[in-house]
Amino acid sequence: MNPSLEELQHLVDVAMQRRPGTVLFKNAKVINVFTLEAEATHVLLAGRWIAAVGTFLEQSTADLIIDLDGAYLAPGLIDAHLHIESSLVVPSEYARAVVPRGVTGIVADPHEVANVAGIPAIEWMLHASENLPLEVWFTVSSSVPSTDHETSGAKLDLKTIESLLQHPRIVGVAELMSVAGFLSGNPEELSKVCLAESASKLPDGHAPGVVHRELQAYLAAGVASDHESTTLAEGREKLASGCFLMIREGSATRNLEALISLVDARYGDRVGLVTDDRLPQDLISEGGVDFLVRKAISLGADPFYTIRAASYNNARYFRLNRRGAIAPGYQADLVILDDLPAFKARQVYQHGKCVAENGQLIAKIPHVEVSTSILGSTKLPKLTLDELRLTHSSTRVRVIQAIPNQILTKELIERPTVTNGQVTSDPSRDLLKLVCVERHGHHGQCGVGLVQGFGLQRGAIAGTIAHDHHNCMALGVSDADILLAIERVGQLGGGLVAVENQKIIAELALPLAGLLSDLPLEEICLAMDRLNVSVEGLGCRFPAPFMALSFLGLAVIPELRLTDRGLVDVLKNSLVPFAVV
Amino acid sequence: MNPSLEELQHLVDVAMQRRPGTVLFKNAKVINVFTLEAEATHVLLAGRWIAAVGTFLEQSTADLIIDLDGAYLAPGLIDAHLHIESSLVVPSEYARAVVPRGVTGIVADPHEVANVAGIPAIEWMLHASENLPLEVWFTVSSSVPSTDHETSGAKLDLKTIESLLQHPRIVGVAELMSVAGFLSGNPEELSKVCLAESASKLPDGHAPGVVHRELQAYLAAGVASDHESTTLAEGREKLASGCFLMIREGSATRNLEALISLVDARYGDRVGLVTDDRLPQDLISEGGVDFLVRKAISLGADPFYTIRAASYNNARYFRLNRRGAIAPGYQADLVILDDLPAFKARQVYQHGKCVAENGQLIAKIPHVEVSTSILGSTKLPKLTLDELRLTHSSTRVRVIQAIPNQILTKELIERPTVTNGQVTSDPSRDLLKLVCVERHGHHGQCGVGLVQGFGLQRGAIAGTIAHDHHNCMALGVSDADILLAIERVGQLGGGLVAVENQKIIAELALPLAGLLSDLPLEEICLAMDRLNVSVEGLGCRFPAPFMALSFLGLAVIPELRLTDRGLVDVLKNSLVPFAVV
Repeated sequence: MNPSLEELQHLVDVAMQRRPGTVLFKNAKVINVFTLEAEATHVLLAGRWIAAVGTFLEQSTADLIIDLDGAYLAPGLIDAHLHIESSLVVPSEYARAVVPRGVTGIVADPHEVANVAGIPAIEWMLHASENLPLEVWFTVSSSVPSTDHETSGAKLDLKTIESLLQHPRIVGVAELMSVAGFLSGNPEELSKVCLAESASKLPDGHAPGVVHRELQAYLAAGVASDHESTTLAEGREKLASGCFLMIREGSATRNLEALISLVDARYGDRVGLVTDDRLPQDLISEGGVDFLVRKAISLGADPFYTIRAASYNNARYFRLNRRGAIAPGYQADLVILDDLPAFKARQVYQHGKCVAENGQLIAKIPHVEVSTSILGSTKLPKLTLDELRLTHSSTRVRVIQAIPNQILTKELIERPTVTNGQVTSDPSRDLLKLVCVERHGHHGQCGVGLVQGFGLQRGAIAGTIAHDHHNCMALGVSDADILLAIERVGQLGGGLVAVENQKIIAELALPLAGLLSDLPLEEICLAMDRLNVSVEGLGCRFPAPFMALSFLGLAVIPELRLTDRGLVDVLKNSLVPFAVV
Repeated sequence: MNPSLEELQHLVDVAMQRRPGTVLFKNAKVINVFTLEAEATHVLLAGRWIAAVGTFLEQSTADLIIDLDGAYLAPGLIDAHLHIESSLVVPSEYARAVVPRGVTGIVADPHEVANVAGIPAIEWMLHASENLPLEVWFTVSSSVPSTDHETSGAKLDLKTIESLLQHPRIVGVAELMSVAGFLSGNPEELSKVCLAESASKLPDGHAPGVVHRELQAYLAAGVASDHESTTLAEGREKLASGCFLMIREGSATRNLEALISLVDARYGDRVGLVTDDRLPQDLISEGGVDFLVRKAISLGADPFYTIRAASYNNARYFRLNRRGAIAPGYQADLVILDDLPAFKARQVYQHGKCVAENGQLIAKIPHVEVSTSILGSTKLPKLTLDELRLTHSSTRVRVIQAIPNQILTKELIERPTVTNGQVTSDPSRDLLKLVCVERHGHHGQCGVGLVQGFGLQRGAIAGTIAHDHHNCMALGVSDADILLAIERVGQLGGGLVAVENQKIIAELALPLAGLLSDLPLEEICLAMDRLNVSVEGLGCRFPAPFMALSFLGLAVIPELRLTDRGLVDVLKNSLVPFAVV
């Protein structure tokens, strides 16, 4: 992470012009995040590091001299909060997607794989992100499992978090999402802050809508950042209370437009831009944190403040030494741009070497073996139709209402449709059977309920992405199709499947933890497109049905959810029966 | 340093208003360093920490409710660079001087005591600064000894620096002053940056006048800050190159007026205010870093930016967690002020308790035994007149020219005044004999030379403050008076002495390392006044003759100096003979 003594000697020798540099960028317009201006000057590299910036370098020698002829030279972007798993790819593939766009560093929370496979999964993510043309830091997932009402594949206790915080590439504790736990003074939650502070690392927050008294209490506990603000007032209040504000523009939730005016002279040194989660399709079409830079500038934000918020600010927040700026001693992670609003990288340098050109990665990506700890983690039981049954016992039952483009669900009380003493799906009323099967090899139990909103008229879908426990979720019109979809997911070793009339009509295998594919991003996108079109053909009204399915088990966001243990009333924080009595 | 789990629970309980707070400040105008505004609101404490800030606290309960009736509540000031030794006091006495003025934290470089007594002295400073109403952090002195041309009392090698950096209150490596060593790639110098970075601590700089190529090389090595800038252009160039700029207003060197315009919207988040060195008299009459706040505001600087530069910015630079702001979770180090320009503390709170009121410390200061390692460190040899002799061997000799109000000296070439084959002082030409006696018990050797500029007509002065080696320096008209002054210094166990006609006419004992008194600051000032008046009576033209004397041995600042080894030509970095041949 830090330069060695030999590197420092090299740096000084090059800066003093006693030795030629490795690369000299001449006639650059350097984006200086310290002056918030572009400076017409030259930049000289010594291997991995920037040796000097200045007009005095005019006649310097270097192994490679590149005349930029007035093109911009910007620091490589650093994304301060994201989940690689949201893009369904392995770290190297994430790098292939974003590095050519000018992203040279990310801070990732391996929350999803950690819920499935625990420490070995985090260790594999660390291993799989070594020696990439992208610098990957991690925060330790802080809430594994998220609740007591679900069976996750692993548990990260305080001892584990403490030990992971010793890793040099682990720079904090990830989004502390149990706001209720914090506000009640829960010692396990508060201890996570103590562990981060003891390790001189950052305790990241996650406090959607938390303001006033609750915000004061949450921040008093020591939480240092938040990326869940949705309104200007909320963002401003958090900044005024000392919080570092990560402005998030993900696929599921988009807050940039609401918050962009905070990237200003008053607050601009304590805001960062982050993606949080990007679906594979959005990652390809829009990009990573580079998308936020373009969008922010198009919304009228100052380009220099914007670039600083997506580079130096994030680095400074996480104490990433010598990262995020073009200045002597900083790591030579650089982007060459023809203009700022387009933020289209002509070339990207990482560690002083050209790693991407014209949108294509040219750096070699090391092959990483997939660990057995992360493969084979989908251990579905052999189910029969019996286990999907919902016996009729009441004329009023709880139904989860899914809402388009929202993670929130509502609880409906409905009269069930009954056939032969069994509650069944009823597509005419958009009531579909919903199943959550424990798939981590613990007990294979099934939660069964009903969901409204998807609109399927036939068939079924199933998948092993199900926040945060990532059991196998399925829904459909016919129990037999649900059963087949789950079976096929099992055969794939995890993945997403659509079934119609006892036939698999589309699928994507996700053999790594049941969450990630080892395919190229383009192929994943094609498979996702096929899945979405197929499910639309079944009558589904949701544009991203598998994402919608993945949130039906998320027992930390109101109101009603289904886990392998049954229905969870999130506001009551307890399991509730299907039948209302 | 960080709150315990129990403290966090207390904090959250109080913020959630489940328990009464310890102190509630009502109707405060809170200086918010995050919004750079004053906010009319309430602040609730939970013991040592701030639990909440907000108007919702109107009806909160607390053990103590203080209605501020619109007075300002500011964060306690934090000075990011100073030498306690400059004020001749022990840490507790420094605290007594500055805490009532609103200074609640300092980062001190124990450079002077380290040069005399090494690790035990640093350990004693750490010990003597525990449990004060002032939070004291240290940086490890990086250049002990400063050169090879002097005999210091101790040497801090890389292993020692590495081990001291593990101490939780040691937050960096102090002013890396060997710019030449850095620029030549000296491995010992560069290794000090590596050690700081490995420990995730800050490598502080010291680069007077260093700009352009040399600045790039110096910063490329990893130096993170500078406090030696004297011009706006120099300060701006350092900021633009990524350096954290400490704006210094000491007793010897005053740069605030030149640099104050950098405390602005562009650079204002990366500047800090520091005192570096304050003479006892200035500490009493002007204050510590609070003086810089007043002066900056009087020079037209924005009060909010100014206060941030003397609190949060310095804390953030040194990664002092939860320090330097009034916000939930921050340490309750607070100053109550009636108006901002005067910055006159009505009350000062530290760790949530009132420690000073109306300019007087009310907190108890723990008694600290003076360590034997730091006492008795003045080990002067028994000298005779023979050792002060300068045998006449050339008609041209080197003379140190001291310059009023400057640390720089000039080299003069003069024809010596000779009596009986010996070069002697000649007050008619303002040529005085200058002596530097090794006093750390190594060999007791004497360097002897001539100095011009002091103007003494009779008598002699001597003292054990002599940067950076702190041997015993003396100068005077008669060798016998010089000898007596040195003898008396030895009897005092270190100190400052003035002699006239074989009589001690004024003195101040500095028994701790020959640098510090254990007297109250007021008594030290009285003694200094008596010394200065006495030396003025001897004909001296310098307002602070002992400070001027203390710099005559400083072999890192041009041009000519005297150490125990003889005359040092600083630009040539070598010893030179008295006689020019």
